[in-house]
Amino acid sequence: MDSPIDPNLGSGSLLIAWQLKDKNVLIVGGGEVASQRVESILVTDAKITILSPAEGLSPRTKRFLELYPDRITYLDRSFTSPDELHNMDMVLTAVDDNDLSLEIVGMCRNARIPVNAADIPDLCDFYFGAQIRDGPLQIMISTNGMGPRLSALIKQKIQGSLTGCEGEAIRKVGELRQLLKVYEPGVGGAAGRKRMKWMTQLCNQWDMEEFASMDEEMMKRIMEEGWAQDRCPFYEEVGGKKKSRTFTAYSPSWSGLLVSSLSFIAGLSVASLLLTRRR
Amino acid sequence: MDSPIDPNLGSGSLLIAWQLKDKNVLIVGGGEVASQRVESILVTDAKITILSPAEGLSPRTKRFLELYPDRITYLDRSFTSPDELHNMDMVLTAVDDNDLSLEIVGMCRNARIPVNAADIPDLCDFYFGAQIRDGPLQIMISTNGMGPRLSALIKQKIQGSLTGCEGEAIRKVGELRQLLKVYEPGVGGAAGRKRMKWMTQLCNQWDMEEFASMDEEMMKRIMEEGWAQDRCPFYEEVGGKKKSRTFTAYSPSWSGLLVSSLSFIAGLSVASLLLTRRR
Repeated sequence: MDSPIDPNLGSGSLLIAWQLKDKNVLIVGGGEVASQRVESILVTDAKITILSPAEGLSPRTKRFLELYPDRITYLDRSFTSPDELHNMDMVLTAVDDNDLSLEIVGMCRNARIPVNAADIPDLCDFYFGAQIRDGPLQIMISTNGMGPRLSALIKQKIQGSLTGCEGEAIRKVGELRQLLKVYEPGVGGAAGRKRMKWMTQLCNQWDMEEFASMDEEMMKRIMEEGWAQDRCPFYEEVGGKKKSRTFTAYSPSWSGLLVSSLSFIAGLSVASLLLTRRR
Repeated sequence: MDSPIDPNLGSGSLLIAWQLKDKNVLIVGGGEVASQRVESILVTDAKITILSPAEGLSPRTKRFLELYPDRITYLDRSFTSPDELHNMDMVLTAVDDNDLSLEIVGMCRNARIPVNAADIPDLCDFYFGAQIRDGPLQIMISTNGMGPRLSALIKQKIQGSLTGCEGEAIRKVGELRQLLKVYEPGVGGAAGRKRMKWMTQLCNQWDMEEFASMDEEMMKRIMEEGWAQDRCPFYEEVGGKKKSRTFTAYSPSWSGLLVSSLSFIAGLSVASLLLTRRR
């Protein structure tokens, strides 16, 4: 457990997964930037309040109001007093009024409410970044404000490196871990360490596609033929079907070989054509 | 700008880049988990206080105390009273005492201080995730607590998809954006939109390696031969050296073509050999 020390320290942000279940989030403003904030918060289970005169609503914000009336409370007016912050757990401003932004940030700071003001990055408690989501899997890419456009490019690159079954694999592994706690209850201590060691080994032994394909029956077999016998079973042992994946994983080389062979044959054919003509 | 609405909403965390420059972070505990918290916070510029009896310090925590005496204040004692939270902007607990954790979380909640307790996930304001850092580029992978081991595997996959020059590219683009603001000052409005449009086009036209290789002279040429003439210059136009990368970027197809051609020639040769023999 005594892992090496990363020399790449200092001057960064603390990337965290903030919990907003049943929390209240106030979004001041209703324009295009505000609509991006609404979307960010809709990812969570927070209760959202949008404060903006109707004439300031972008088409996208209006669409969110139509689609999620149960999650968004809409107040058709401007920000008036510190009372607006009552009961709020987070505040996001996206208004075309720098003075108002500054004022709201000050109020939030006094009330110790985390705040992000789109137009005053220096005073924000936190920033947003490019996001990828696949069920329980969430990935954020932050350039610490230095290259918002590049983070979109890096996001594409990362999306391309994922198979698309990671979210499902994580969900299934989450279920397996719950089942494991039924077989071996107890928080922390020896039981916790034993469970963690076994799960780590299983994760090293199985791949994402295999985890994603687990069903209830297979999980039961993993527990009974694996955990109960103090070992980590292989995928095929517990009913997993050998996939064509083993073949397609090497597809670039296979197709390369195929093209080469076809070219070889083409070369032969051209030569034999020449040969025939010569006769 | 009216981007489509992501249907993948609800039940997630809000992934954010929290700002800790000149903020105070209290870490209660000094064991192995606490040392991971210390490392997470060292990524930022926060001032860290570690509160733990010396006998509870892990080798790794001790190493951090030795390496970063200017960033970490160490208090050799247990948590005693709410006064410990005075002036703190964030609190992380990693102690083998569930009751103490609960108590500290309660105090933080009252004082509205963001808190993470390693042993009580349900009460945390935020979670940590697997992290990748390359200078200004920071990436976090969160499985929302469902598969910590899988996030390590996804981290490896993502690291493999990056070239390693993304951080440098972001840093250089950050410098170019500063320079752009010298040529075209003004916050927001028409100037902001014009700058953004030009930067977006440049980002679509150049790749990461090209941005990473920019020097001061090249940035000046980009501004004078590009921005000043209302166009986006290509990399080679402003002194960028054509890299073997231009070739290797297409290497799968090029090498495929090469192999095919060689095979074609081999086919021809075998045929001509047959032809020669026939004669």
